[in-house]
Amino acid sequence: MASSIIRTTNLSSLPSIPALSSTSSSPFSSIHLRSHHHGAVSLCTAEKFRVSCSISDSSPLPSHSHRRRPDYIPNRISDPNYIRIFDTTLRDGEQSPGATLTSKEKLDIASQLANLEVDIIEAGFPAASKDDFEAVKTIAETVGNTVDENGYVPVICGLSRCNKKDIETAWEAVKYAKRPRIHTFIATSDIHLKYKLKKSKDEVIEIARNMVAFARSLGCEDVEFSPEDAGRSEREYLYEILGEVIKAGATTLNIPDTVGITLPSEFGQLIADIKANTPGIQNVIISTHCQNDLGLSTANTLSGAHSGARQVEVTINGIGERAGNASLEEVVMAIKCRGDHVLGGLFTGIDTRHIVMTSKMVEEYTGMQTQPHKAIVGANAFAHESGIHQDGMLKHKGTYEIMSPEEIGLERSNEAGIVLGKLSGRHALKDRLNELGYVLDDGQLSNLFWRFKAVAEQKKRVTDADLIALVSDEVFQPEAVWKLLDMQITCGTLGLSTSTVKLADSDGKEHVACSVGTGPVDAAYKAVDLIVKEPATLLEYSMNAVTEGIDAIATTRVLIRGDNNYSSTNAVTGESVERTFSGTGAGMDIVVSSVKAYVGALNKMLGFKEYSSTLRKIPSDANKVPA
Amino acid sequence: MASSIIRTTNLSSLPSIPALSSTSSSPFSSIHLRSHHHGAVSLCTAEKFRVSCSISDSSPLPSHSHRRRPDYIPNRISDPNYIRIFDTTLRDGEQSPGATLTSKEKLDIASQLANLEVDIIEAGFPAASKDDFEAVKTIAETVGNTVDENGYVPVICGLSRCNKKDIETAWEAVKYAKRPRIHTFIATSDIHLKYKLKKSKDEVIEIARNMVAFARSLGCEDVEFSPEDAGRSEREYLYEILGEVIKAGATTLNIPDTVGITLPSEFGQLIADIKANTPGIQNVIISTHCQNDLGLSTANTLSGAHSGARQVEVTINGIGERAGNASLEEVVMAIKCRGDHVLGGLFTGIDTRHIVMTSKMVEEYTGMQTQPHKAIVGANAFAHESGIHQDGMLKHKGTYEIMSPEEIGLERSNEAGIVLGKLSGRHALKDRLNELGYVLDDGQLSNLFWRFKAVAEQKKRVTDADLIALVSDEVFQPEAVWKLLDMQITCGTLGLSTSTVKLADSDGKEHVACSVGTGPVDAAYKAVDLIVKEPATLLEYSMNAVTEGIDAIATTRVLIRGDNNYSSTNAVTGESVERTFSGTGAGMDIVVSSVKAYVGALNKMLGFKEYSSTLRKIPSDANKVPA
Repeated sequence: MASSIIRTTNLSSLPSIPALSSTSSSPFSSIHLRSHHHGAVSLCTAEKFRVSCSISDSSPLPSHSHRRRPDYIPNRISDPNYIRIFDTTLRDGEQSPGATLTSKEKLDIASQLANLEVDIIEAGFPAASKDDFEAVKTIAETVGNTVDENGYVPVICGLSRCNKKDIETAWEAVKYAKRPRIHTFIATSDIHLKYKLKKSKDEVIEIARNMVAFARSLGCEDVEFSPEDAGRSEREYLYEILGEVIKAGATTLNIPDTVGITLPSEFGQLIADIKANTPGIQNVIISTHCQNDLGLSTANTLSGAHSGARQVEVTINGIGERAGNASLEEVVMAIKCRGDHVLGGLFTGIDTRHIVMTSKMVEEYTGMQTQPHKAIVGANAFAHESGIHQDGMLKHKGTYEIMSPEEIGLERSNEAGIVLGKLSGRHALKDRLNELGYVLDDGQLSNLFWRFKAVAEQKKRVTDADLIALVSDEVFQPEAVWKLLDMQITCGTLGLSTSTVKLADSDGKEHVACSVGTGPVDAAYKAVDLIVKEPATLLEYSMNAVTEGIDAIATTRVLIRGDNNYSSTNAVTGESVERTFSGTGAGMDIVVSSVKAYVGALNKMLGFKEYSSTLRKIPSDANKVPA
Repeated sequence: MASSIIRTTNLSSLPSIPALSSTSSSPFSSIHLRSHHHGAVSLCTAEKFRVSCSISDSSPLPSHSHRRRPDYIPNRISDPNYIRIFDTTLRDGEQSPGATLTSKEKLDIASQLANLEVDIIEAGFPAASKDDFEAVKTIAETVGNTVDENGYVPVICGLSRCNKKDIETAWEAVKYAKRPRIHTFIATSDIHLKYKLKKSKDEVIEIARNMVAFARSLGCEDVEFSPEDAGRSEREYLYEILGEVIKAGATTLNIPDTVGITLPSEFGQLIADIKANTPGIQNVIISTHCQNDLGLSTANTLSGAHSGARQVEVTINGIGERAGNASLEEVVMAIKCRGDHVLGGLFTGIDTRHIVMTSKMVEEYTGMQTQPHKAIVGANAFAHESGIHQDGMLKHKGTYEIMSPEEIGLERSNEAGIVLGKLSGRHALKDRLNELGYVLDDGQLSNLFWRFKAVAEQKKRVTDADLIALVSDEVFQPEAVWKLLDMQITCGTLGLSTSTVKLADSDGKEHVACSVGTGPVDAAYKAVDLIVKEPATLLEYSMNAVTEGIDAIATTRVLIRGDNNYSSTNAVTGESVERTFSGTGAGMDIVVSSVKAYVGALNKMLGFKEYSSTLRKIPSDANKVPA
């Protein structure tokens, strides 16, 4: 059974936000916190407030009190200023090298995206593998059926290439959602037509038209079409193919800058031109999808919205292939801070207070760490050198801050004052975890409490960062096939590094092995290999101390590739892609945490293997949620 | 004596670049590779070629063969399309939390910036501390006096607040350069005037005018003025103060978006308005300085250039306070790829082939690691999932690539085919290092060769990444006060972690201590503390395996703060800022590399302490370069 976790936000722990907010009259009077327990979804509500950015004393913002998320109709938005947020972390983001997610991780992230209240979740590419298919289906059945009291439920979208088999598979996966969408694409630039597709322009139009019509014929009323590499496509041809797919029934037209080459003025012009010249465009939604190869994806996305796009495709932390995509947090906060002043009143429905937690979860699960100076969510984004704190910051927050950290769910470090120690009890631990947004079940809390006490015995102060590291280590772990029981190590400059490890298998049977190596980690991993006998290559290894001080808890991340091939299909090229698996481990002994991370990655790989073979026995249309 | 290193590029190892380049007729026929040996500068030249980006088959680029860097005149550029690159990695970038650089590191980076051929190097804020002053002065005396055969030499700039003492100090530091510049600033937004300066608008104009005139009166013919927080300043007031400082003799006006709040259209409009409304603006250069708080700094910078700015202020990797600054590599590559098509023919003088090496050096010295999906220089920026490689990439590179990795000095991994092994000799090692851009002196090569053999004994293949890690560990180290000789460790889940370390002091005397701890690193650091007796707090700890495989070489980075206060002055607020010190260590045993990193950081801190106390004995105007 997969472990489960409820994430909530204890609003009483949030400091009050000064000025400019339009709390009382907001129609958004509650938030809905979701949790998934194997298909069942529990809801809890809490009072909610909305805040605006404090840009400058001299220019107060207009009230947003009359703004609310318009009812969802696939091809139309009743409020002309509303921007739909289409999150593709689970599809485009997961294509990042090494970012492979398990089904459980995908479901956790999808639940968190629903907490953020994104309009559309692109949950995956169902034709890529059985595993991808099941992940999308499970998300459609659960997160895609959790309607809150304001009627919000995310659209669940599946990607497909322009062929019948892909589209059928996508529909089989998403059709269980309240609001299912199929997203199909084909390349339209000369360079792709010539070198990749080897098809004529007319042939490509014919395929696009037929496949959009086919998706509609299956009963899908929400069909998105993307002309791949639109940024480099011939303009007249683009108008023509887009006009044809509108006639065939497409409801959203997504314009990708596939190679990330356009500048904002150029991309904005492209959207404006499409809006002005495509027959029937007034009956559909225009969408942006900007790659970040020149570091311009956020600007291009905003420029597209300013020119008439009303859906923007983004990922958490901006992850994705190469330099990634436009990041949700940058686009959303730019619209929130500047939508009224500069973008003609544009707004989104995102509950920004879940940004930090979502960012951390995606960082943890994908292993794609954000740089300290990443905008909005980087470790330094709200850190000022002490001098400024003492001066400008204290004199007036607005001198150097354009938004408050609380808006994105970040507590100011000097306000996170509660520190637990070895005398703290189970209740204090539970309360603090709740305040941090974690609700654990009793079994999880028991395991965590035991580890918390062990840490508190050795460290004077157990900080929030320590707790979060422990929760990640205890709760965000794959199913255990192998479990580390004990280990001992001798190393240094003087002799041969030697390690002994004791692992338990899934039946609880104990296995012991020892090995020498070039260092303590090499020795320990070799000893693990002697027991597990599942050959793997270590691709990446990294470690961070999450807390200050020499006695810190360190978190290790590893990325491995199985020497026996584990693969799925690449959405864009259709070719087989080798999967890689990450693992994390936390602890005060870096060698022990390194071994935990490795065992975790091996468990993830073995789970993928077992899951894939199980699936072969289940018909793809079976209406059953795998545990 | 500081160790020295010559960086060069062996052009014979670069693969030839197809199409579109205008090699033969380029007036840039050589590059100049600088190295610094305690004041002396050696030059070597090599044949050079310039390449353009391959954007698309269908749109060949115009030839750049007639473009050359215009002669430097402070307030005028003869070519209306030339954009000056002002690098402030050493000033604004170094203000990033934890990015403190030693004088030697600053000099290394300045030399590398000259390899890139940046137009202006902002070398520091001389009034911040004696250490900052000496670093700027040394860079002015050396890098600022190395003129190449085309007449290129970077301007060396020092920052100062708007007061006589700061400006005098800045001049004392930069005046030794061939092209010295003083950059002075004062806040002009209402919010800063009211809460930070507590001065009237007229008072601020008076100060700015007088201080620019004062800088000119010292003999400085190149004076830059910045109205801090220009993005939020009242427009009419901005025109007025800028007009006044032009009259007083300013030659460059820099427009900062201090809090990173503007959108590209807005920032472009700000520059256009200033250009249209400021009296005398035609006689000076307009500059941009964009913070990245909303992820828009690159777009804002380009928008500013498109609107008439002809200097752009940037940092390597985009480092800086909070979310950092516009990054040099993104701005430069966007101009290179799209300057002709979208920006009316704008171009820079940057030799982009040094981008990767500069990026790595700044990452190494500042400890600010770039995220894998960082545009241009991230680890994944040119990595494609294998599927695409097999299909689009091989069919035609241009389908997914807008620039070639070789353009920024990155070798394709499948072309970096030479792998050394334990039978490789000293000559093979030296050759490969040269190809990677490293030229070591004989002593350095000897030390490195010894370590290379030790690694090769244990690993089958010693890759380029291994070599670079070893070079960093051997050459990019602070002066050794303490040196790790030997250590041994016992740890694991079963007992008390115990470590014994043996260090040598600067006189070669050996000291041994042992300690227990919560883990092996804690135990070892406590043993080091028992010997060194210089109390420090560990702020950050991270580790990466730089090469694939379990027997990889891991590089550890630590950041410490001395419990005895080491501080300098913050440029913006004038308050004291605590300095922090980073250290790195590489090796196959992660506990050993962790201890090396810690000893390195302690050495850096002790060096800072000793250096600061030495300086107190030297008059600030003494024309002497400290070793």
